[in-house]
Amino acid sequence: MIITLTTDFGYTDSFVGIMKGVIYGINPHATIVDLTHGVPAQDVLAAALILRHSVQYFSRPAVHVGVVDPGVGGARKPIVIEAGGDFFIGPDNGLWSLALAGREIGRSVHLSQDDFHLKPTSTTFHGRDIFAPVSAHLALGVPADAFGETLSSFVRIDLPAVRKQPNELIGEIIYIDGFGNLFTNIEAADLTGKHTLEVRLGATTISGLSSNYAAVASGACTALVNSWGLLEIAVNHGDAQRQTGAALGDRVYVKVSA
Amino acid sequence: MIITLTTDFGYTDSFVGIMKGVIYGINPHATIVDLTHGVPAQDVLAAALILRHSVQYFSRPAVHVGVVDPGVGGARKPIVIEAGGDFFIGPDNGLWSLALAGREIGRSVHLSQDDFHLKPTSTTFHGRDIFAPVSAHLALGVPADAFGETLSSFVRIDLPAVRKQPNELIGEIIYIDGFGNLFTNIEAADLTGKHTLEVRLGATTISGLSSNYAAVASGACTALVNSWGLLEIAVNHGDAQRQTGAALGDRVYVKVSA
Amino acid sequence: MIITLTTDFGYTDSFVGIMKGVIYGINPHATIVDLTHGVPAQDVLAAALILRHSVQYFSRPAVHVGVVDPGVGGARKPIVIEAGGDFFIGPDNGLWSLALAGREIGRSVHLSQDDFHLKPTSTTFHGRDIFAPVSAHLALGVPADAFGETLSSFVRIDLPAVRKQPNELIGEIIYIDGFGNLFTNIEAADLTGKHTLEVRLGATTISGLSSNYAAVASGACTALVNSWGLLEIAVNHGDAQRQTGAALGDRVYVKVSA
Repeated sequence: MIITLTTDFGYTDSFVGIMKGVIYGINPHATIVDLTHGVPAQDVLAAALILRHSVQYFSRPAVHVGVVDPGVGGARKPIVIEAGGDFFIGPDNGLWSLALAGREIGRSVHLSQDDFHLKPTSTTFHGRDIFAPVSAHLALGVPADAFGETLSSFVRIDLPAVRKQPNELIGEIIYIDGFGNLFTNIEAADLTGKHTLEVRLGATTISGLSSNYAAVASGACTALVNSWGLLEIAVNHGDAQRQTGAALGDRVYVKVSA
Repeated sequence: MIITLTTDFGYTDSFVGIMKGVIYGINPHATIVDLTHGVPAQDVLAAALILRHSVQYFSRPAVHVGVVDPGVGGARKPIVIEAGGDFFIGPDNGLWSLALAGREIGRSVHLSQDDFHLKPTSTTFHGRDIFAPVSAHLALGVPADAFGETLSSFVRIDLPAVRKQPNELIGEIIYIDGFGNLFTNIEAADLTGKHTLEVRLGATTISGLSSNYAAVASGACTALVNSWGLLEIAVNHGDAQRQTGAALGDRVYVKVSA
Repeated sequence: MIITLTTDFGYTDSFVGIMKGVIYGINPHATIVDLTHGVPAQDVLAAALILRHSVQYFSRPAVHVGVVDPGVGGARKPIVIEAGGDFFIGPDNGLWSLALAGREIGRSVHLSQDDFHLKPTSTTFHGRDIFAPVSAHLALGVPADAFGETLSSFVRIDLPAVRKQPNELIGEIIYIDGFGNLFTNIEAADLTGKHTLEVRLGATTISGLSSNYAAVASGACTALVNSWGLLEIAVNHGDAQRQTGAALGDRVYVKVSA
């Protein structure tokens, strides 16, 4: 079974490699896939967005592990959630809530049964001592309720809402990718059946939507619906973040007509 | 079968992980190898150089996927090229032309048969929607001509030529690796049978060639033939890019005698 | 069998990918795990620390390859060390000495038998031409002594010692992770049975030890025993390196009572 890993551990340390050692030690035939380990440190919302737009590309059943965990070792619970045939493991801090929107949610379990934990169990690296071994056992077929007591709910986080007026949508930048493309919270569905006249971000005004980056001149700003189904502001052959100076949370105004 | 991935997607986003999800969904037993995802954004030539010096280290047959694709969704075609028993997948922008020099080229195919594409097919992420599924099917044995119509040619790019005079070779820096080593377009073969007297780059003059980095004092510049078979300027225990201030395209002058 | 890779090759080049091509070409069923390729360039001590705290999380027998190799192609020997059922491959520069502390050391072998090397063998990339093929053959069961002559010893490096006084331990920062957490050379065992009153680093004074990051206010400095069993100075929800301005080698003073 596939086990995916998503963390903010970065690439300079061996923390991710250590987790893989633990997983393979329990489950030598697991297929481990790195989603990314470049989530900005302790940025639970960025991780939640990445996961929301990634996990559906994996065959079910899969085990998805997310470790962006500023509260490690404290009061927040380590959990697994069953949903739509997959298993979602991580700290109970909202990391999984966007990915699970629209899925049928099954059992949520507090990973309190320490028979499955590495000993001694550190208070700073639950990825190694709790999440890795639990993921390996889950992928071997151990049922979720073996790992601890069932919970009645898990923490949810919300994206900022798009403000919708008859002739204008007001959204904001919620994610910036490695190319400097600016992802907004405005979804393709928000624009369906409407004519997009203009997209404005700070001093930048863009006429209508493009079908792809190369539809505008090299170095020009463009707006399009991207591979995550979100309205994106980009620069053909360039970096929209650098060119516009935009940041997370900046408002984006979209003029539409019916 | 091995599927290699080379992109400019970087390590902060989950784009590469998503491609792996798509590949494993079709071909659960593929062996996926990351060549690198740190190609500078949209730098087709850097990717072409990396691929030229990497793919021969993989057993044949293999499927090699390269996605450095500034024209994604526009007029450039997604293609696969059969050559020397391997398959080379990517946008038709010259990415593969250096790696294929000297290989017997077989069929080139436009990946137009959209039965093999993910739906809906984005215009900004053909890595996920076209290249990943095609690579997975190819590695399962689907013949290349099933993916679309045969093309009569593909785009080629050239390296800058070395200027060769009886007592001097004039080349340039074409690649700088992560250690700051400066790779030139001067090949080992250009130096064979000659005596290399002096290598000059800006204000730096180096006498002759070394056999390895440690053959000069710590902190000293040296010139040698590197693991890609190219003349390289390096600093023992140091970073030649930082120390010399050199950049891509800077001229390198090599005095030789017969 | 698992083959782990730890290098300072970084993520912009394809050097690690090339090594994997060589390994799979010899041993298609190897399980390759990246520990990290983000070791600071040529920093043998950082690599030795990473390996010391990582290899024990892999099932035995495993083959561990470390390539942080400023002396590549020079006088230093490429070696393999058998210890505690595992194989440790790399340049003989001390890379493995911390990881092997406390293990029963078996045979050490100079990798001089060039039948196992790629030809031509470069002087700048033994990772590709010596360490990768040797690791693949070892994982296939070729005995260590087939790779060259037995050595009587290997290079060892030492960590700086902790200065221990009745009421004070004086250590130093030996590793800084990607979160900016400051790892000292003071081990959990050094603190066992004592009461830790105060930890001081430059102008920062911390009262006692915390059990986890979240035990102090957001943005506050804390000291705790981390997942490597070392005294660590951290900032809850923050970056201790940035906040304190500390660097490798900075002294850390720990007041203790019996």
